This record gives sequence, C-alpha cells and structure tokens, in this order.
Amino acid sequence: MANGNEFSHLTLDYLPSLSLDCVILGYKNDELHVLILNWKNSNDWSLPGGFVEINEEVDTAAHRVLKDRTGLQISFLKQLHVFSGVNRRNPSFIKQKLALIDMDETTKRWFSQRFVSIAYLALVNPDSFVPIPDHLSDSCEWKPLNSLPKLTFDHNDMIAYAKHYLSIQIKYLPVGLSLLPEKFTMKTLQKLYEVVLDKPLDRANFQKKMLKLGILDRYEKQMGGGAHKAPYLYSFNELKYQEFLKSGFGFV
Amino acid sequence: MANGNEFSHLTLDYLPSLSLDCVILGYKNDELHVLILNWKNSNDWSLPGGFVEINEEVDTAAHRVLKDRTGLQISFLKQLHVFSGVNRRNPSFIKQKLALIDMDETTKRWFSQRFVSIAYLALVNPDSFVPIPDHLSDSCEWKPLNSLPKLTFDHNDMIAYAKHYLSIQIKYLPVGLSLLPEKFTMKTLQKLYEVVLDKPLDRANFQKKMLKLGILDRYEKQMGGGAHKAPYLYSFNELKYQEFLKSGFGFV
Repeated sequence: MANGNEFSHLTLDYLPSLSLDCVILGYKNDELHVLILNWKNSNDWSLPGGFVEINEEVDTAAHRVLKDRTGLQISFLKQLHVFSGVNRRNPSFIKQKLALIDMDETTKRWFSQRFVSIAYLALVNPDSFVPIPDHLSDSCEWKPLNSLPKLTFDHNDMIAYAKHYLSIQIKYLPVGLSLLPEKFTMKTLQKLYEVVLDKPLDRANFQKKMLKLGILDRYEKQMGGGAHKAPYLYSFNELKYQEFLKSGFGFV
Repeated sequence: MANGNEFSHLTLDYLPSLSLDCVILGYKNDELHVLILNWKNSNDWSLPGGFVEINEEVDTAAHRVLKDRTGLQISFLKQLHVFSGVNRRNPSFIKQKLALIDMDETTKRWFSQRFVSIAYLALVNPDSFVPIPDHLSDSCEWKPLNSLPKLTFDHNDMIAYAKHYLSIQIKYLPVGLSLLPEKFTMKTLQKLYEVVLDKPLDRANFQKKMLKLGILDRYEKQMGGGAHKAPYLYSFNELKYQEFLKSGFGFV
C-alpha cells in the first residue's frame, strides 16, 4: 500500500486543476497498441499521467511524467487535445483509491478536485524500449487497441481521439517512421495503413502510390537460399520523409 | 476605472491556473488580420481571453469568453496549443493593472497567480459581423498581422503560432471558406494563399491546380457593360469542400 506522506506536498508543488496524460501508440503483431499502467493490487488500468510542477512548462511536464511512470524517453510528444469533461474523473473511483492510502485532508482535497487534462500523443516502436512501471503500478504493458479494458476516467476517450487523429493525419502525411522497425516489407507498411484506416486497400495501387512519393529506400535482395522469393525490404529515407512532412501532399 | 467588486467571486467561480485566449484571424485588404481588444484608458492590447468556470468545459468557456468580450458568435473554435511559459505573464504589467482597480487581497492573488492558457483559433470573414468591445475595453479591432503592436503577455507568440499553423494546414487542406466573401475572383484566392504562405505563386499554375480540385463553382459573367472583361467569380462548393476536408490531398 502506498504511503500517504509522499503526496503531502502536492498542493505546494503542483499547479491545481491541471493534469496531463500520455497516449503512447505502438504497432506490433499487425495491431495498434497503447501503453498503459496497472494500478498496484487492483484491476484498474490508466494511461501514464501526472501533474504539472509550479514552475514547469506543460511539455516538459509531459516528458518528465512519461519517463517517471514508464521509463520511456522520447524526443517528441505532441499536444493532442485538452479533455475537460466536468465529470471525467469518476468520484467513486477516487474515493475508493483515497481510502486505500493514508493521507491528510489537504491531500485528499487535492485528489478530489476537478482536473482538466492535456492529452499528449507519441508514436513509438514497441521493440525500441522496455517499459518500467513506477512504484504506483504493478505493471506497464502494451495492450491492443481492439481489446482494451475499461480504463480509469476518460482515458478510453483519449485513446479513441488519438486513433481518430492518426486516421486523419495519415491521409495528409507519411506515417510509419516512428512506428515500424527500420526495415519492413511493403506488405507490413500496407497493413499499418489498413489498421489505422480500418479498411482494406488495393495492394498494387498502394505500392504504386507509396513508391511514387519517393520517401522509401529499397534494399537489394540477399542472394542465395530462397531469397529471390523473399519480398523486398524498404526503409524510410529520413531526409525525404522530413521534407515530405513539411511540404505535404499539397500543391502549393 | 473598473470596479473591483465584479472580480470578488473569481476565486469561487473559476478554475485556478487555467485561462484561454482566442486568436481570431480574418482576411481583408489583401492581409491577414487578428481581432484584439484595447484595455480601457491605456495603450495595452490583448487577445480576447478569460477563465474557465468551475463547472464548464474548456471549449464551452472559449465560446462564452469570445462572445462576452467581442460579441462574436461562431460555430467552431479549434484548440490550437497550450501556452505555459513560466514567465508568460509580465508581473510588472499585472501589478500596474491591479493598482488601477480597487480589489481585495484574495482577488489580487487571483490575478497574480500563474496561468497556463489554452489558445483557440478561428478563421472568420471580418465583414460578417461588427465587433463589440466589452466593459473592460475601449475598442475591439481588426489589426493587420504585419503591423501589430506588442500585445500583453505572450499573445504575439500565440498569433505567430496560429499563422504558422495556417501556413502548414494550407498545404494539406482547402482554406478560404471561412475567410473569403461568398463570391471571389481567382486573383483574390491566389492572394490569400500567397499571404498565408508568404511567397508569390505562379498565376497559371495556381488556377490550373485549384480548378482541378473540383471544390469551386464558377459563375457565368453578367452580360452588358464591360462585363466580358471582368474576371470570373467563384464560390466554394460547400459539399465538395467538406468532402475534401475529410479526404485531403492524400492517396488513401
């Protein structure tokens, strides 16, 4: 059981009313996954979230919270959306959690106040790091978006928002550099697009259009063995990918 | 001079630490303009901004604040970015303003706390409404982005962020439906793109590509007078424009 003393400076150290939560999306086994934390000794799961220090910018807070709660250090977290539903924090859940922790009245008031939460988004390759749960959590795991448990508060809404955002973005911008391993097949890339868009795509058409963008480098097949039957491997050309992020599919 | 009593319930009625500001961009005289308020009896200018009520969602607050402070009612305000610079509010400015208003200590503490501010963005046609300054302001005016005064706090940064955001968006999405009058010439549309992108565009090429998008309706020229020499007028086909907003320039 957590010790209430660790919370006793919350009111002094953090901005009131404001929190943040991180939607970290990864792609593996042909599915989008999200990184969530399992609260100690419970079946409750949450996005990694936390508060903003009195003298800290919100983006800095997001990086700190993500690192402290999951061990993940990444260079870019995007502000996704501010969630402010008046009843977004379930009072009975808070009451139940507060009862488990020995804390003073000031600290209880801290946790039972209304919080507006800034949701952040990052896309990462799940194989690129090992999640480390913080001391409030039993585990930190990648869960497929299609079979998520009911998370605390409005965290399922945040994930749905992130998924929708990604499905819009993918129509304008290249997606995959952060999600896929360095080398991948055209089939893998197409599957990622199909998963994000929730619809099947025509194979020949997809390949033709994707190659035309000029952001992929193709690797020569290794000779010997059955390699001539193996599919080509591709990687993103980072320079061209970044140029494309700036210029987009647009015409001006 | 404002009466301090009107502020005495701030601490009870509004969420602490959180504010919002509205960047309302308009287009006229071949320039982007922004709607700003002139503080009473001063040379200080600000974006229309305010606080979030204890039981109010942030988007609702943004619409309420914008209406109360400028008279403008619009259907869509977009969350642009959360600004949280630790010194974003100039303490000496606040001190000076507070000295002018007869208010109690609690209220002074309210105004001198740190605020994280959600910046909202909307694009409007300046001819579509008459701005009405609120009782804190002497006037509410459209000012060209290229000759803005130094605004309070980080409001110039918010406007620069909005301008940059628009210059990225215009590469992926059609822009103009909210900014231009119902009917416009190709030259006017091109000028809007040039202003947003800060660069000249080739006339023939722009026209060709814009027509190819299929989002413009062209009007027949009025006969008689010198009308045959007048340029064609266009309007956006709202249905096709909205479809395009969904599908984008993308290929999937």
